[in-house]
Amino acid sequence: MALLQVLSQIPTASDIEITHEAIAPMIHRTPIFTNKSINDLCGAELFFKCENLQKIGAFKMRGAASAALRLSDEQRARGLATHSSGNHAQAVALSAQLLGVPAYIVMPDVSPAIKVAATRAYQAEITLCENNQQAREKNLERVVAETGAYFIHPYNDYHVIAGQATAAKELIEDAPVPLDIIIAPVGGGGLLSGTALSTRYFSAGTKVFGAEPKEVDDAWRSFTTKQRQQNSTINTIADGLRTNLGDKTFDIILKEVDAIFTVSEAGIIQAMRLIWERMKLVVEPSGAVPLAAILEHPAVFEGKKTGIIFSGGNVELSQLPF
Amino acid sequence: MALLQVLSQIPTASDIEITHEAIAPMIHRTPIFTNKSINDLCGAELFFKCENLQKIGAFKMRGAASAALRLSDEQRARGLATHSSGNHAQAVALSAQLLGVPAYIVMPDVSPAIKVAATRAYQAEITLCENNQQAREKNLERVVAETGAYFIHPYNDYHVIAGQATAAKELIEDAPVPLDIIIAPVGGGGLLSGTALSTRYFSAGTKVFGAEPKEVDDAWRSFTTKQRQQNSTINTIADGLRTNLGDKTFDIILKEVDAIFTVSEAGIIQAMRLIWERMKLVVEPSGAVPLAAILEHPAVFEGKKTGIIFSGGNVELSQLPF
Repeated sequence: MALLQVLSQIPTASDIEITHEAIAPMIHRTPIFTNKSINDLCGAELFFKCENLQKIGAFKMRGAASAALRLSDEQRARGLATHSSGNHAQAVALSAQLLGVPAYIVMPDVSPAIKVAATRAYQAEITLCENNQQAREKNLERVVAETGAYFIHPYNDYHVIAGQATAAKELIEDAPVPLDIIIAPVGGGGLLSGTALSTRYFSAGTKVFGAEPKEVDDAWRSFTTKQRQQNSTINTIADGLRTNLGDKTFDIILKEVDAIFTVSEAGIIQAMRLIWERMKLVVEPSGAVPLAAILEHPAVFEGKKTGIIFSGGNVELSQLPF
Repeated sequence: MALLQVLSQIPTASDIEITHEAIAPMIHRTPIFTNKSINDLCGAELFFKCENLQKIGAFKMRGAASAALRLSDEQRARGLATHSSGNHAQAVALSAQLLGVPAYIVMPDVSPAIKVAATRAYQAEITLCENNQQAREKNLERVVAETGAYFIHPYNDYHVIAGQATAAKELIEDAPVPLDIIIAPVGGGGLLSGTALSTRYFSAGTKVFGAEPKEVDDAWRSFTTKQRQQNSTINTIADGLRTNLGDKTFDIILKEVDAIFTVSEAGIIQAMRLIWERMKLVVEPSGAVPLAAILEHPAVFEGKKTGIIFSGGNVELSQLPF
């Protein structure tokens, strides 16, 4: 029997609460940090939800665990599968390891050796493929056909969205004051849609903003035109945000998010450096995008109690931008 | 009237307790972090006391605050002074700012601009001088003569030692289990001597180890020969540990420390990288030296519950060794 019910529509408050309880043994309840000098610099009161300190170093662990716990014993025993070069790969691999089932991960052959090694360290079976979407999907299909493993989508999935929603739920519960704003980065939209749902349900008076690199502004264009748009390039240092929105995440974002801000590449690097230098925290470029938005749009955040989701901390240290 | 009594001999348990209470409003009670993958790698159970998350990014804040609070109102009003290119400069500057008195800091003119700027940001008056001990001392003497400010020594001072001792006191109080070992880096010996006193007083069964770069092994040689030795070079990446022991710190270390371990430069860089990658924490090279000791002397630590003091997190990001 599955531990969690299958969701066929947008997660409700109760769905997110039940999900949170079920995944609790598989995740860390990450701390909220504050920093006086960054507050002074921004003229705002910031509360940083440290998902860089989450298991596997990113919020992705929440969504993968949530999806894995929907499977029947029989389904789950056949294993979990996905294609990813990044944090989702490690999240699916660790979820499988914790549940004692196999993981099959398709990764592009250009993936940094350190990411392949980290995923393999969770006992996952890695299939390397050419670095394009078609090769990734074809290899995944083959692996799923051969093993019967269950494919966990990185974002466009209500179970994944319900899992990612638990980060903002914790932020709302643990922040010492009610928040005026919560801001999260947006790539495929799993984190932002989950953040928007939790904020609507558990802190109705709080605004929800997304933050995105200008170079891959599909979410901003989709939000503005109310039509799902595609990125034509992936020319950003924020490697976790190169993806386009999915239909499920877009639907929630369009309904529940108040605004999306875009930021420059220089702004991302500056924000990341500020976090490393002042907070002594390793945050990946994608995780620095919301602070970049605050620094580039100061009037919006002036005097506001603002919750920020530091989405992850997985960085190739030999390729830093400073 | 001074808030704390002047200490003319080795701080007692009660001295450290009173110091801790007095400096509490000026410092953070830093968290203890654990990391499963580093535990697995070391075959030990490690508890990391995160003084990199301390105010000014290092434990030095504790000692400077402790010394500043010994001064009479009249003395303190004339200001605090020191010579330092590093964390102690910022600690004295912030202590003065919090107490509403001037700070006069002598810094070598080769100091990284970022460190000068950080010290100036705490309203300190900076005097730049040539990069040698004589010039630093001469300039400090002149500043003290002109202003009447009080010179806070970076380590060879019972007030400073009593302050640094509060980091291990918190580690002992907040660790979820009794510790077999506490290990701290050793440069001038302020942190290690304070750690040794707190461990002796508040956790008598726990061993205390120092960890030092092989390239500047004055503490190891002093400890072994029972005679205070000097370094002939400062050829280590661990810029906080290039100093020689003082007579007061050496005296305590010789009596209370169980062993000193030396580590290679490659070991320091490897440990630092491990901390950044796995724990997502920015720790400076000096702070990574104890973990390097554990990795290079695994038999000593096997199966041991070991407390480690991450002494600081102030790193020039444009000059990383990886």
